[in-house]
This record gives sequence, structure tokens and C-alpha cells, in this order.
Amino acid sequence: MSKYDYIKEEAFKANMQLPELKLVLFTFGNVSAADRNLGVFAIKPSGVPYEELSADKMVIVDFDGKTVEGDLRPSSDTLTHAVLYKHWEKINGIVHTHSTYATAWAQSLRDIPIYGTTHADHTTADIPCAAPMNDEMIKGNYEYETGFQIINALKEKKLSYEDVEMMLVGNHAPFTWGKTAAKAVYNSAVLEEIAKMAYITESIKADALRLKDALIKKHFERKHGPDSYYGQV
Amino acid sequence: MSKYDYIKEEAFKANMQLPELKLVLFTFGNVSAADRNLGVFAIKPSGVPYEELSADKMVIVDFDGKTVEGDLRPSSDTLTHAVLYKHWEKINGIVHTHSTYATAWAQSLRDIPIYGTTHADHTTADIPCAAPMNDEMIKGNYEYETGFQIINALKEKKLSYEDVEMMLVGNHAPFTWGKTAAKAVYNSAVLEEIAKMAYITESIKADALRLKDALIKKHFERKHGPDSYYGQV
Amino acid sequence: MSKYDYIKEEAFKANMQLPELKLVLFTFGNVSAADRNLGVFAIKPSGVPYEELSADKMVIVDFDGKTVEGDLRPSSDTLTHAVLYKHWEKINGIVHTHSTYATAWAQSLRDIPIYGTTHADHTTADIPCAAPMNDEMIKGNYEYETGFQIINALKEKKLSYEDVEMMLVGNHAPFTWGKTAAKAVYNSAVLEEIAKMAYITESIKADALRLKDALIKKHFERKHGPDSYYGQV
Amino acid sequence: MSKYDYIKEEAFKANMQLPELKLVLFTFGNVSAADRNLGVFAIKPSGVPYEELSADKMVIVDFDGKTVEGDLRPSSDTLTHAVLYKHWEKINGIVHTHSTYATAWAQSLRDIPIYGTTHADHTTADIPCAAPMNDEMIKGNYEYETGFQIINALKEKKLSYEDVEMMLVGNHAPFTWGKTAAKAVYNSAVLEEIAKMAYITESIKADALRLKDALIKKHFERKHGPDSYYGQV
Repeated sequence: MSKYDYIKEEAFKANMQLPELKLVLFTFGNVSAADRNLGVFAIKPSGVPYEELSADKMVIVDFDGKTVEGDLRPSSDTLTHAVLYKHWEKINGIVHTHSTYATAWAQSLRDIPIYGTTHADHTTADIPCAAPMNDEMIKGNYEYETGFQIINALKEKKLSYEDVEMMLVGNHAPFTWGKTAAKAVYNSAVLEEIAKMAYITESIKADALRLKDALIKKHFERKHGPDSYYGQV
Repeated sequence: MSKYDYIKEEAFKANMQLPELKLVLFTFGNVSAADRNLGVFAIKPSGVPYEELSADKMVIVDFDGKTVEGDLRPSSDTLTHAVLYKHWEKINGIVHTHSTYATAWAQSLRDIPIYGTTHADHTTADIPCAAPMNDEMIKGNYEYETGFQIINALKEKKLSYEDVEMMLVGNHAPFTWGKTAAKAVYNSAVLEEIAKMAYITESIKADALRLKDALIKKHFERKHGPDSYYGQV
Repeated sequence: MSKYDYIKEEAFKANMQLPELKLVLFTFGNVSAADRNLGVFAIKPSGVPYEELSADKMVIVDFDGKTVEGDLRPSSDTLTHAVLYKHWEKINGIVHTHSTYATAWAQSLRDIPIYGTTHADHTTADIPCAAPMNDEMIKGNYEYETGFQIINALKEKKLSYEDVEMMLVGNHAPFTWGKTAAKAVYNSAVLEEIAKMAYITESIKADALRLKDALIKKHFERKHGPDSYYGQV
Repeated sequence: MSKYDYIKEEAFKANMQLPELKLVLFTFGNVSAADRNLGVFAIKPSGVPYEELSADKMVIVDFDGKTVEGDLRPSSDTLTHAVLYKHWEKINGIVHTHSTYATAWAQSLRDIPIYGTTHADHTTADIPCAAPMNDEMIKGNYEYETGFQIINALKEKKLSYEDVEMMLVGNHAPFTWGKTAAKAVYNSAVLEEIAKMAYITESIKADALRLKDALIKKHFERKHGPDSYYGQV
């Protein structure tokens, strides 16, 4: 028994959702779940196949990226998670995948335009794609810098991490986050679907138009904010 | 026991078909089933995951959109269903999904051209895409107006809801209907397949031609009308 | 017990392969299996869902399209099957599907170019697409004429039904055939895969070149003819 | 019991992974596993459906392509495997598939550009596409020449088989290899995913740029070489 059992279980269950939702091939993804009171998060061990995962294999890491408990090496993306948890105080879950369509958008270095209400139900902004970092940063503390790359790209676009819970890292792949690990996983699946729909939309109509503001606002507010009326109270 | 048990069961079963037919991600869809004698319909509760649904969770609503029975809040699209049931007297089932290819067509604001007999087997018209409503309507009673948006788009194109049981709402997603909830679900799956085929057809041949009238007529009449000879008597 | 039990069983099993190979949505397809000695074929009843099929529901029809045994109405495409069996003496199985990619090629009215060895392993020709029939024929005995449309398109292209066991009917969908019903089903799955690969190939390289003759010949002869060396003796 | 049981079992298990990973339709693929001490490899028998495979049906072949043990005829691609094992001393597994997206790239005769880190995690080079061989070689010992076609294409591009474990044979399909049969299968699945992502990337952005050198180097070295830090020690 450990005081970290709860987030280990949460991180384990959330990680197992990735192959079920067809968001990862082999080990191309990871989920973490944080406990703000304990100042740590549980994350998938690096390179361990999903079929061999269990809750007790999750690694406990603090917000500086130092391993606190666990026999295995944590995900190679651990420092990116740590940076985001440290700077974004209201998130408790982070997901990184290489899901096919979102990754293709990241490879194209394009933001995903908001083409419809499926997108607006989740955020009012185009899904931002952070530019690849400069060569010095890449050669330096790469995963740590990836965290700042994400934080800075949101800032530059004047977006809040509470409003936009998903993002593309240019030439790399998507990251998503949320108030829980389960919500971050949900966001990963939504992003993949939005990415696929936007790709097909542009194939059907090369000059497709962004959704107009009134519809963006309406759909977002149906699901979010004080006047939302989606779901159960 | 309730006099609504039958349509609750019908709506429940029809809703459960959506994930099975891969027409919905998470809760992005809903089905309703109407009882004309009782003047009500049963509809999915809002935001409840399919794996947690059961017949007794269905909400009973009248054709003005007022909840008649049920502990849960009905689908946020309930008023759209209510408007359609009220105006189209011969339908008893309605489906709304965000299925991938049909939604991409809706996002492109294009009607789906009738390119082949798979389409003509089900309707003789291009699948209509209703233009997005004006900003005043969006800010007003949005879901209620969506119902009229659908009804008016059909009228403008001089189409009957009995002949065309599927439609795209521009920038949003598809709606389908039918004489039963099961038929409306069937129509949703057919629409998604037609949408995918039309997309691929245009990729293979940018200037693909619409099906000629004689073939449209022939295929539709094989399956519909007095001289149909498809299926069992 | 009936002397037709064997082909009923064969047709039943072959029909059940279609949903398993994801070649049909709902009832959009049918398979028949012929017995040349008895001069009949067993075919799927019209409009019956695959999950309700059984061997005893197969309908026995002669090569003129007349029902010989069975309580159900045979597939609406029965006359097309009958015409092909009557004219092509060496085939004992026919399949019709509306599989997604092959149907999209049919809707584009294009032959599928032979772009690689996957295609050449099965036939040396581009997969022919028969032009839509003229309006008089459509209004006449449509399914009967569809049989001749297939036969004549092959003749015009100087192809033999023994060398090319698959074809697109323009604006409609694919038909395949073979020495057995199982082989015809195999051909349907191969056609769908070839159609998908050709579509992606052209997307990757708009002016992709047909496979050169030496490779076509080599790959076809590896699997077919006196010097073949694929499979077990 | 035979001294070859171990590699038969290894080859069998690796072959069974191909349909599970959706890399093969019917029998369109094969895996072999080598034992360097015994100077032989175990390979799938030709044309046998995966559902009928078992370890004892694997065929034992030496590095000149001569069958050493086994009642069945080995894969028609056996000589290609033999040539590669003979010339590349550090590989112990080879896979050939006709996986959809990789085959479409092979049919387009294009190398797969390195567009993102998913690709760079596995190799620093574009995935090479070997030009189709000349007609004399095709008419000659085709499968044997295919081996040399692969070896020579790598040489011409100054690539090492230890750095690039996957390749496209122009107009044909992919081959992958690795230190074990399991690793070669893994590479086949990775190649298919990279091929799909690159195809979508170019559809989203026609003039997508190759990944810059610093990112290629960083991602490859995260997973490979003396300073790698991915996975467990």
C-alpha cells in the first residue's frame, strides 16, 4: 500500500484507454495523473507494452521531474509532463500520443481550422500547432523545452490552457490535458476525430470556410460555462 | 411498468446501434422513438455514455419539447427532434450523429452528389446540406430553430421528408429520420457510407458526373414504390 | 434433405464471408454458388440481414433465372447471376458487393490501372469498368441486361472471364466470379484492396505509371499457369 | 523434436502477428526467423492461410535457399530472404507484406519523406524505394534478384541495413528486417503507420517540409545508440 495508489490506478486505467480508443501503436503514447496535494504525478514507464502494464508499474515523479517512487524508468516524455503540471496549476492529467491524423497535422505544421460544431463543442480556437523549437533547444534539455514550447505557443496565441486543452507540437505529435487523466484521454480522442474531419473537409472543399463566430460561441456555451445545458446536472 | 416502456425500449436499442455501427464517438449522437398515439417520444438522456445507458434512462418528451417522464435531462438536441415530429407526421424515429464523413460534407457546406446506385437505392436526390442559420436564430432558440432549418431547407429544394430521409446541417452534422427509430439508424449508416464513397469518388475523378436519371429512377424503384421488387413481400 | 443442400451450404458460407471481410453494409451484397450438373445455383434471398441467414434460406434458381426451390424471393440481382452462369461455363460462383473503394472507382467510371504486383498477382489487365447501359436497357429487363453489360464490356476489351475474374459496373458497383463461390468471395476482397491501393497511389503520385509488362507477366505467372510456383502442389 | 523447433516457433508466432496487426490480407505476407549457428531460417509455407498455420508447418531453409526440413513448399519469396540473410550477417528476422499504405508508396515509386518524429524515432533516412529491376533480371531468377535489388538500393543511397530496417521495392511492396523476427514484424507495423501519416501529411500540405536535421538526430538518439534513454535498461 502506498499513498500514491490512487493516482497509479488512475494513470494505469487512463493509459489502457489509449489502445482501446486506437490512439496508439505499440508504445507510442503515455498518460499521467497528478495529485496536487502530494505534489506528484503517476506516469507510464518508458517503452513497456500496454499488455504488460499494471497499476504498480506506474512511476511516481514530482513536478521537477524527479522520480519519487517506482522501479522502472518513467516515460521519456516525463519532463514535458512535469513542466506542464508545474506551470498549469489546474490540470491533473496529461496525454501524449502519435495518433494518426493529429500527427499528420503536426507534421504539416498547420493549426487545425475550426470547421464545425464538433470542434466548437470542445474549444473556440483553431487547434494550435507549436512551431518546432530552435536547434539549440533541441540539443539541450529537449523534453523540458517541449513543455515550454507548448506553454509559449499558447501564450503567443493568447489562449488559455483552461480553454484549449489540446495542441499539436510541430513535426512531432499531439499533447492534450485536462482536470483529470480521463478527461485528457477524452480530449485526445476528440482531437484525433477533429483532425480527421478537418482533413476530409479540405479534401471535399479546398477552400472550406471556418465556422462563423455565432456558431462557435453557441456550441461552446452549450457544453461549457454558466449557461451550459449539455449533460446531467 | 409505464405505457412508455415500448418506445423506451425501442429508443434504447436504436441508440445502442450507433456505437456498434461506429457512427458515434463517446456521446456524439442520439436517437429518439415516437409514439403518435401518446403524442410523445423517448430520447437519449444528455451526455450519458452508451455503456451506461438502459431503457429506463430514456426520457419521455412531448412534441413541444416538454419532458413528460424521466429523471434525467433529455438530449440537448431534444427540441430539434420535437419540431421535426410535430411537422412531419409520418416519422417515428430521428437520429443525430457526428459520423465522420457525413460531418465532413456538412463542414464543407456541400450537398452530396448522387454518384451511384448505392445512393439511388435510398433516395433520388443529392443529400441536401442546409445552410447555416443566421446569427439571430443561433442566439435565439438554437435547437428549435435547427428543426426549422431542416424543414425549410427541404422545402426550398422541393423535396419531401418521405422521399429524402437524411440531411446535413451545414457546419454541423447529419440528421436522419424514418418510419421507425431502427429505420432512422439504418439511414444514418447508409448516409455515412454514401458520404465516404462520394468523397473517394471525387478524389479518383475530380469531375465525376452525377448518375443519369434513368439509373436513379430504376434503382430507387427497385426498392421503393408499387413496383419495387427488393426484399421479401 | 435436398439434392441442393451442398450448394445451399456453400452459398450460405460464402455469403457469411462478406460481412466478415467487411465487404458489405447491411444487405448490400450477395453470393451465389452453382452446380453445373443440376443446372442451378443457390443464391441469397433478397433483403434478408446476414445475421438471419441460414443455409436452408438460400434460393435455388436455374440458369434462366427461374426459382426452382425455396420459400423466399431470391436476390434482386438474380438475373445478372443467371446470365453470367449461362454464358460463362467454367464459373461456379459469383459475388456482388458495394464495397467502398471498388464502388467509388465504379462511380468514377474509370478502369483501375494496374499499379503494382498485388494487382498483377491476380490479373494482367486493368480492372475493367463497364460503361453504364443506355436508357432503353435500363428501363427494360435491367438485371438481365446488367449480365450482358458485363459480358460485352469484357469482349470489347478482348479479355477472357477466365483471366479477369473481377469487374466494375459503371455508376454501380463490383461483380466478381470464380471457379467456386469461395474463390469469387476471395476475388471481391482482393478487388477492394487493389481499389484502395490504387486510390492511395494516385493521391501520392498523380501521374503514377502502370506496372511494366515484364513485371505483370512475371507476377501473374508466379501464381497462375503451367510454371506457377506459388502455394502447395 | 528437432533442433529447429525454436526458430519454427519463433517464425510461427511472428507470422501470426501479421493478420493481428492488420498487415496482411489472406496470405499476402510472410515472416522468417534465422538461426545463425545452424545456418538456416524458418519461413512460412507458400499460400497457406494464417488460420491453418502451426509451428510444425514452418519450412527450414539454408542461406542458399535450399529446403533443409519440412513437408511443404516454402514461401515463393524464400530466395529473397536467403539472399538478405547471406549478405546481412546481423539480421535474424525478415518480413514481407503488402500492407496498404506502404504498398501504395511502393507503387508510386517514391521514397517516404521523413516528415516527423514518429519516423525519426526509427530511422534518420527517408524510407528508400528501390527502383524496379530491369527486364532481364525479372525474367531470370526473380526472387533472388529482388534480394540484390534491396541490397543495392541501400548501397546506392549509402545507407546501412543496421540503420534502416525497412524498405519499399518499387511497384511491389515493403520488406523489413531486424535482429529478431519480432523486431522485423514491429518494423512492418511502424512502416505502415509512417506511410499512412506521410500520405495524410502531403494531403494536408502539398509542400510539407522534411523534418530538420536537429530533430531527426535528437529523436533517433533518444531511442538508439549509446546515449539512448527510451525504454528500460
